[in-house]
Amino acid sequence: MPFFDLPLDKLEEYRPDVVEPADFDDFWATTLDEHPWRAEGMTLVDVDAGLRDVRVQDMTFPGYDGAPIAAWVISPTTPGPHPAVVHYVGYGGGRGMPEEHLVWAGAGFVQVVMDTRGQGAGWGTGGATADTGHAGGPAAPGFMTRGIEEPRDYYYRRLYVDAHHAVEAAAALEQVDPTRVAATGGSQGGALAIAAASLNPRVAALMADVPFLCHFERAVGLTGREPYEEIVRFLAVHRDKEEQVFTTLSYFDNVNLGKRATAPALFSTALMDAVCPPSTVFAMKNHYGGPSEIEVYRFNGHEGGATYHLRKQLAWLKERTAESS
Amino acid sequence: MPFFDLPLDKLEEYRPDVVEPADFDDFWATTLDEHPWRAEGMTLVDVDAGLRDVRVQDMTFPGYDGAPIAAWVISPTTPGPHPAVVHYVGYGGGRGMPEEHLVWAGAGFVQVVMDTRGQGAGWGTGGATADTGHAGGPAAPGFMTRGIEEPRDYYYRRLYVDAHHAVEAAAALEQVDPTRVAATGGSQGGALAIAAASLNPRVAALMADVPFLCHFERAVGLTGREPYEEIVRFLAVHRDKEEQVFTTLSYFDNVNLGKRATAPALFSTALMDAVCPPSTVFAMKNHYGGPSEIEVYRFNGHEGGATYHLRKQLAWLKERTAESS
Amino acid sequence: MPFFDLPLDKLEEYRPDVVEPADFDDFWATTLDEHPWRAEGMTLVDVDAGLRDVRVQDMTFPGYDGAPIAAWVISPTTPGPHPAVVHYVGYGGGRGMPEEHLVWAGAGFVQVVMDTRGQGAGWGTGGATADTGHAGGPAAPGFMTRGIEEPRDYYYRRLYVDAHHAVEAAAALEQVDPTRVAATGGSQGGALAIAAASLNPRVAALMADVPFLCHFERAVGLTGREPYEEIVRFLAVHRDKEEQVFTTLSYFDNVNLGKRATAPALFSTALMDAVCPPSTVFAMKNHYGGPSEIEVYRFNGHEGGATYHLRKQLAWLKERTAESS
Amino acid sequence: MPFFDLPLDKLEEYRPDVVEPADFDDFWATTLDEHPWRAEGMTLVDVDAGLRDVRVQDMTFPGYDGAPIAAWVISPTTPGPHPAVVHYVGYGGGRGMPEEHLVWAGAGFVQVVMDTRGQGAGWGTGGATADTGHAGGPAAPGFMTRGIEEPRDYYYRRLYVDAHHAVEAAAALEQVDPTRVAATGGSQGGALAIAAASLNPRVAALMADVPFLCHFERAVGLTGREPYEEIVRFLAVHRDKEEQVFTTLSYFDNVNLGKRATAPALFSTALMDAVCPPSTVFAMKNHYGGPSEIEVYRFNGHEGGATYHLRKQLAWLKERTAESS
Amino acid sequence: MPFFDLPLDKLEEYRPDVVEPADFDDFWATTLDEHPWRAEGMTLVDVDAGLRDVRVQDMTFPGYDGAPIAAWVISPTTPGPHPAVVHYVGYGGGRGMPEEHLVWAGAGFVQVVMDTRGQGAGWGTGGATADTGHAGGPAAPGFMTRGIEEPRDYYYRRLYVDAHHAVEAAAALEQVDPTRVAATGGSQGGALAIAAASLNPRVAALMADVPFLCHFERAVGLTGREPYEEIVRFLAVHRDKEEQVFTTLSYFDNVNLGKRATAPALFSTALMDAVCPPSTVFAMKNHYGGPSEIEVYRFNGHEGGATYHLRKQLAWLKERTAESS
Amino acid sequence: MPFFDLPLDKLEEYRPDVVEPADFDDFWATTLDEHPWRAEGMTLVDVDAGLRDVRVQDMTFPGYDGAPIAAWVISPTTPGPHPAVVHYVGYGGGRGMPEEHLVWAGAGFVQVVMDTRGQGAGWGTGGATADTGHAGGPAAPGFMTRGIEEPRDYYYRRLYVDAHHAVEAAAALEQVDPTRVAATGGSQGGALAIAAASLNPRVAALMADVPFLCHFERAVGLTGREPYEEIVRFLAVHRDKEEQVFTTLSYFDNVNLGKRATAPALFSTALMDAVCPPSTVFAMKNHYGGPSEIEVYRFNGHEGGATYHLRKQLAWLKERTAESS
Repeated sequence: MPFFDLPLDKLEEYRPDVVEPADFDDFWATTLDEHPWRAEGMTLVDVDAGLRDVRVQDMTFPGYDGAPIAAWVISPTTPGPHPAVVHYVGYGGGRGMPEEHLVWAGAGFVQVVMDTRGQGAGWGTGGATADTGHAGGPAAPGFMTRGIEEPRDYYYRRLYVDAHHAVEAAAALEQVDPTRVAATGGSQGGALAIAAASLNPRVAALMADVPFLCHFERAVGLTGREPYEEIVRFLAVHRDKEEQVFTTLSYFDNVNLGKRATAPALFSTALMDAVCPPSTVFAMKNHYGGPSEIEVYRFNGHEGGATYHLRKQLAWLKERTAESS
Repeated sequence: MPFFDLPLDKLEEYRPDVVEPADFDDFWATTLDEHPWRAEGMTLVDVDAGLRDVRVQDMTFPGYDGAPIAAWVISPTTPGPHPAVVHYVGYGGGRGMPEEHLVWAGAGFVQVVMDTRGQGAGWGTGGATADTGHAGGPAAPGFMTRGIEEPRDYYYRRLYVDAHHAVEAAAALEQVDPTRVAATGGSQGGALAIAAASLNPRVAALMADVPFLCHFERAVGLTGREPYEEIVRFLAVHRDKEEQVFTTLSYFDNVNLGKRATAPALFSTALMDAVCPPSTVFAMKNHYGGPSEIEVYRFNGHEGGATYHLRKQLAWLKERTAESS
Repeated sequence: MPFFDLPLDKLEEYRPDVVEPADFDDFWATTLDEHPWRAEGMTLVDVDAGLRDVRVQDMTFPGYDGAPIAAWVISPTTPGPHPAVVHYVGYGGGRGMPEEHLVWAGAGFVQVVMDTRGQGAGWGTGGATADTGHAGGPAAPGFMTRGIEEPRDYYYRRLYVDAHHAVEAAAALEQVDPTRVAATGGSQGGALAIAAASLNPRVAALMADVPFLCHFERAVGLTGREPYEEIVRFLAVHRDKEEQVFTTLSYFDNVNLGKRATAPALFSTALMDAVCPPSTVFAMKNHYGGPSEIEVYRFNGHEGGATYHLRKQLAWLKERTAESS
Repeated sequence: MPFFDLPLDKLEEYRPDVVEPADFDDFWATTLDEHPWRAEGMTLVDVDAGLRDVRVQDMTFPGYDGAPIAAWVISPTTPGPHPAVVHYVGYGGGRGMPEEHLVWAGAGFVQVVMDTRGQGAGWGTGGATADTGHAGGPAAPGFMTRGIEEPRDYYYRRLYVDAHHAVEAAAALEQVDPTRVAATGGSQGGALAIAAASLNPRVAALMADVPFLCHFERAVGLTGREPYEEIVRFLAVHRDKEEQVFTTLSYFDNVNLGKRATAPALFSTALMDAVCPPSTVFAMKNHYGGPSEIEVYRFNGHEGGATYHLRKQLAWLKERTAESS
Repeated sequence: MPFFDLPLDKLEEYRPDVVEPADFDDFWATTLDEHPWRAEGMTLVDVDAGLRDVRVQDMTFPGYDGAPIAAWVISPTTPGPHPAVVHYVGYGGGRGMPEEHLVWAGAGFVQVVMDTRGQGAGWGTGGATADTGHAGGPAAPGFMTRGIEEPRDYYYRRLYVDAHHAVEAAAALEQVDPTRVAATGGSQGGALAIAAASLNPRVAALMADVPFLCHFERAVGLTGREPYEEIVRFLAVHRDKEEQVFTTLSYFDNVNLGKRATAPALFSTALMDAVCPPSTVFAMKNHYGGPSEIEVYRFNGHEGGATYHLRKQLAWLKERTAESS
Repeated sequence: MPFFDLPLDKLEEYRPDVVEPADFDDFWATTLDEHPWRAEGMTLVDVDAGLRDVRVQDMTFPGYDGAPIAAWVISPTTPGPHPAVVHYVGYGGGRGMPEEHLVWAGAGFVQVVMDTRGQGAGWGTGGATADTGHAGGPAAPGFMTRGIEEPRDYYYRRLYVDAHHAVEAAAALEQVDPTRVAATGGSQGGALAIAAASLNPRVAALMADVPFLCHFERAVGLTGREPYEEIVRFLAVHRDKEEQVFTTLSYFDNVNLGKRATAPALFSTALMDAVCPPSTVFAMKNHYGGPSEIEVYRFNGHEGGATYHLRKQLAWLKERTAESS
């Protein structure tokens, strides 16, 4: 894979103007007003995964429109309250199986893995959550253009609200210290973590890797790779909807959301990542509202730092959550 | 493209057993009972496409659940009633623009081009119809696995009902002779035409080219090409849902639907078609309930006979519709 | 598909120096002197395509060297004279079948679809015209390097003369108003339309989409896509013929031809078009000799604006041909 | 991915003759005599991975020729002795990082992850073990043809001995019950597990998924995929060494090794696995010397059953190791 | 590359019926009558290639229609007469440069390398010979469908006559023993060698490797690879010309030509050759009219035996030409 | 293939700073001290290749660590002493067969073709030399990362010493004039020729085509093509070894080696060469220590000038070796 984006020194100072709608804050305030968190919808069922030392719970919590969102809660068996990590998943995947998520509990955190509505059938071991919103207008195969003609109908509006509520659900768990809830994820999961940190002030720390859904105007057409390419495909058909589409997307651009976040953040990007190009990540990082660091993986693609980076996250988050305890 | 399916002499006698659910007829009777045709929802707006000699109308008719389905009606300007052709569209496309559909009106037919709900953003000039059913459970990108875990929720249940109702809408047009309505289409459009001919006895003639959605058990895994591959992708994740998925699909298999159709039919297939393999087409043709012919394009892929075949269809349908007038 | 060419603001002012041979005008004057238009060679046979409201004629006219060139003439059945559109075809295709060309006649124009000598077997429904010139020296598979070692032998010399004569043939039709003949086409067809407008002053309006054969020095090596790549392949073998090849091509560069045209023009290009890159189109447009406009399709590849753009052409040309009537 | 191998009913009875050298048993007896297990070379260093409830040790044990082989030992912190699982790794990978291997310890097993000499730089987070044997004669890039001209020099001779010794190393751990040591792995790791079960009678249970290195005569040329294709590449150059190469390979064919194993086994295969085709897996399974079961993943490729299957392995092995305790 | 054709035991007895036109012999007799060999057109120019011990001559000889065909003559500097090898070139290539052809002269043979009319710009260092026949009707890019609608116009009619005359030209050289002229080549060159051996009784020995243009009915559609695929492309457009095309090809099928040859022959094929599949080669070999042997390269593609096989040819031909001297 | 590197005018002045380790000269002096040339290990066996006018010898000479390195010696049969050319081979190949190397002997030179240790099984007709050094630490498939963690263990250290000694072996041949020994090769062979010219002052002239192993910092990540990509693959796994890897590589960078060479040199590069990008070649050329020329092939990829360039080399070297004789 060749390098295709800006060189690192340019990336470090890349802070482009990104269009922000005038009613951006209203949009999200209204959205959360219309779809408020309701703790009473939560259900928790203990699951025997045959694993000692961790407790696994199959959680359902009410997301956007009260729709039931599945999640795994994987906790240390030691007495709490523990700090928690809300974990969002990459595009096309689902919450998978609890055996795949043992590190954070091993390190003393409660990990909540939120399923992604309607996804969870593209790779891995899948998910179990329907997208109860209506399927919407003409869309290219995939989730990127589902409802894209109108911000209120856009698929990611529902998903960002789910992400916001997942933090509340985590905080409501009896074994969790509600002042020490972090958000994390890679790719689409990184985007959801940023959105959660922006929309939900409860997020005490943010870790987002190779995040998706940042600086759409640059991303679309910089790389020809999925899933950004779904937007190209839509616009190649609907040649008259460019303005409408990018207006919708500006409400969901994590550059705009990240500006409003204040939690300390640890980001990562990879210089050969043609799925979520590094300049789109730096655009977000350099606009981010809170204190932030970024780890750069020079010769990696979208897989990024993998366990090398997880190890950095563990150390970073232990420091953050120790401080606040 | 190499040949990859059975040789022609084997295809001609290929008539496999295809699983049919015991409640197949009930399922569709119930479906149509629950979502009956309601002519009162139709709207028609004249459109000036700048074309002499054809009349273009932008039609909306109520489909499954009464959802508004867009269609073009393209008619000769001569006095009717005329025979009509209801035209269904291939996977990912929409009804496009009326300038793309002038042949049938030129030949004296009213052509109704039904938009495909939720699609219409994958290629061409698109569509304008939302899928108002709920978006559904975990699905691979695309439409093939939307709601696949339960026949009643499956995307194609909605679409087949739309196809059924489009025939009613065509018959209800003042310029159409309701006894001479044919159904046609290629690929997914061919599948919808067969379904329409099976579910709606009003269909007087059927023309289906390189039809999709036939003999799933063979198609899935015979070719690695989209869109059948979406089902593979779903099952590669949901390893425990094979039976459930193929049970759902059996309600939508055009081998089963075609058995119940009685209209005379003209089919076509192409021996190098890796999207809708010829054996799946012959499986349907050899089970078809009415009189049928098939045109074989030996060195073509999924593009099939194109205008060569359209010319054959014009001649064939003129004969059929002249007879019945 | 990522963007790969200049950004739009640079394209709009991109007006590179393009080499022009000193004897350029002589070359073409001599060529047309040696291969003059001879109306007496035209033949016209009515064809029954089973379509009301249009008249279809199978025309043969004498092209370069008097060779018989096939064309379809598709006319309104209303009394003329009508304005006409001469339509040239993309690389590898032929005139196809008349059913594929109904829009212009529907809009009140006589459409003449010129077959492309020797081509017409690469896609679609083909052509029927031989390349009677001799097949020529060593050439890479394809038509781009046929006779490329000498301008007088180059394949496109024959084809440009055919394009010139097609305009004469159109003007000679009894149903055509010879003062209102436009030239149009996409890709290679766009190139032929520009050449026709340059070489034949009778062309009253020009519409060229995603045109090929513009600014060879930039095109070859900017994109690795066919058919420009045929030239790379030739030069990769004949390492000593670079100068000779680009000298030949300079006689056929539509930047040079377009400079000499004066008809009003409507162009289109697509920013993701890697077959005919947008900078090569703008190079031509910005040198064009007459008044011109260009439509830019931002998220399209070589398919460009398709019916969206056809609709614009209909409106634009109606205005142009109404004016002059 | 289409199906490309035998259908399932044929696979289930596929038990081909596979060439076995007359001195097969001698070869391996001599090999192990020359490179015997020496417990004194083992080293163990505790590692703080920041994970509660598991103990991580960085182990080095002497492999073929006494070379130091790295491994992770990941154990429950509860008092032993525990049953153990020796885990071998897929082609190109290494032992990775301990955070990636938490399930077995969570389920009460000691997991030993053996690094693969010379590999560990192709994917994932790598390895740390050199191949101290000499690099050998002409070889295609990769490990498959390293030393292939002579069984005694072949790369996998060294690796199979390492696999044998890893079982001894596991059994020698103070926290392990030496009568309850299982071998497991996927792909190359599955091949090494079978080899270990064959060569080392201490192996009490075998779990091999989508195993590599089975029935070479069929595998090479059935699929065009790496790494079997390395052998094709070698033979395409060394056109005169076919016999020599397949003779060497016959000493390492897990069909031949598996015949000699007696431990109960749980295998898995996937019907769309073009890397390790299912017929090569069934050839081994149907010749296997001990009691065996096989799980078939119908719509998966080389990823096989993933966590779905891991869950089956946990249950299966708990039963096996409970019995023997 | 996987195996895709018949297994070797089936290949060895594969002797299919191949359609042969009733006037096959007339066709070729007439062709050679109309385009007889005329020695007077030969020219020879000595070239200084800076190489000791070989003499290089740039030859031109009159081919089909008397067109000038270029060739290299590379001879030992020792006194003759020597046996000769006429060497034909693969598809898309040309005679190249004399430095590329030194083995046969080194072994005591005069090597005549015939250029291929119109080709010589696809790979390598090219050619210098025009195809003076007319370029012909609609054709897919390439040479396979040039003139394919009529046997007399087909490109290979001209080329086979050139191949026939090249043998005469070789025999007419003063340094050549005209009773000891062999024909050789690989791929298209192998096809031309077979044609030469069939049409010209002077050919004393034939060596054809991985020959092209054998058993078209099987080749087209067995492999999807170029250049056979050009025929598929033509027929995918000209859906009504299948019979015409295969009739034309039957005059040029080397199964039919080879039946009529009597020279002893050494063939080669490769079991992974998807360009010229082994069954098409065996079809020819098993119908061949003279004594023949075949060398099979099991793990090679179209590159076949390369220098391994050249060495066999040297030995085989020395024996043949020693006998006859 | 599009152009992807700097334009020619920038290339001509491209002279980047390239990191050079402080102990570079010590490293190589020590290396050659530890692995000195020992003529006594040479063996020479005459081979009958059936070719008049050339003498073929199968040579073995002691390389790094005294390991036996195979080579062909192909000489004129005329009395010497002759000038000599030591020829190194491209990545993955071996010395092949003597019939493939006849030009230089034909032109009056003794050609020594050095086999490449461990390679010779990737393409062509192969090699016969083992890599006796130990296979080394974790490495990506291929030779580029074998031992890359430590300069003394790196595979190319062994190979560069072999290249140095091959010059000595050539000079020691009785038929060679030891004052007129040139080094040549393409790709990896070009890199070895530069290394030989740098390390061995006996090299009287250097000809390196499209050379590999130049300016690693730019090459890795400029192109995504093999074999530079092997380094990316290694670093994508070993994310913490970037500095170590590039430090090792700096000892083997032909920019650094070439600075120290003084022999007159003829280089070549190709502007579409994505395997060994032209800027990396110019970086070396513009730092080269002796007088140098470069031939640029504008429309070629890695095949470069082929026989066109060989002809230039013959003329250039004849001049050089005539001067010094």
